[in-house]
Amino acid sequence: MARVLKINHVGIAVADTANARSFWESALGLTVDHVEDVLAQKSQVTFIPVSESEIELVTPLAAESSVAKFLADRGPGMHHLCLQVDDIAGMLDDLKKKNIRLINETPLQEPGRLMAFVHPKSTGGVLVELYQVLQDSH
Amino acid sequence: MARVLKINHVGIAVADTANARSFWESALGLTVDHVEDVLAQKSQVTFIPVSESEIELVTPLAAESSVAKFLADRGPGMHHLCLQVDDIAGMLDDLKKKNIRLINETPLQEPGRLMAFVHPKSTGGVLVELYQVLQDSH
Repeated sequence: MARVLKINHVGIAVADTANARSFWESALGLTVDHVEDVLAQKSQVTFIPVSESEIELVTPLAAESSVAKFLADRGPGMHHLCLQVDDIAGMLDDLKKKNIRLINETPLQEPGRLMAFVHPKSTGGVLVELYQVLQDSH
Repeated sequence: MARVLKINHVGIAVADTANARSFWESALGLTVDHVEDVLAQKSQVTFIPVSESEIELVTPLAAESSVAKFLADRGPGMHHLCLQVDDIAGMLDDLKKKNIRLINETPLQEPGRLMAFVHPKSTGGVLVELYQVLQDSH
């Protein structure tokens, strides 16, 4: 059976990245690693490593993105919890057999990783992202 | 300056612990370590280790607890993000100097740990808990 390896990241919805960064950087002393546009999610993500995990500040790039809707409905705050797994396809198959509702029935591919979201209706209200790091194919 | 060491846990507000446990245990294959009443927070916490961090399912023991208010206002979901630090008193002093609003100006002591909450108004909407593990005094 596929296994959860660690918390990969906690995704935080922010309306104003510069303002949000000031808390994590200036107040807490953490360091931004990089900023990336994730076009599949119509969002821009600021990656802040914390030991083996990351805090990701997620801001919408388009009004129809799910993060924009989240901000409009609930305001800024924790948006999703991402768990790194060793075998995302196996995990999704297993969850389907257990009647867990998935937002992505098959994994989405982003550079270096596969990802899929589990519906909060099946998790007790948490938007859970599953994430598998892809081995370098070189 | 005090440093953030890792994500200690993600706290998830749940109305029905048995139901919430079934996702994390039966669907994802994680294992509950223990369950603890945290009387200072009027809540019961179910600890689920995930590598160096934990997922904590938090359910209210009293209607006037902050978790009960959270559930009434927002429903179940991610409630707080806990960062483990090496020196909580130093971190709180530093945050005060930087005009960060604190819920606890001095640390609360629980068995084996010191903790304090930072107000979401100063963090971009996230209830942040700071946490220092106490050395065994034996």
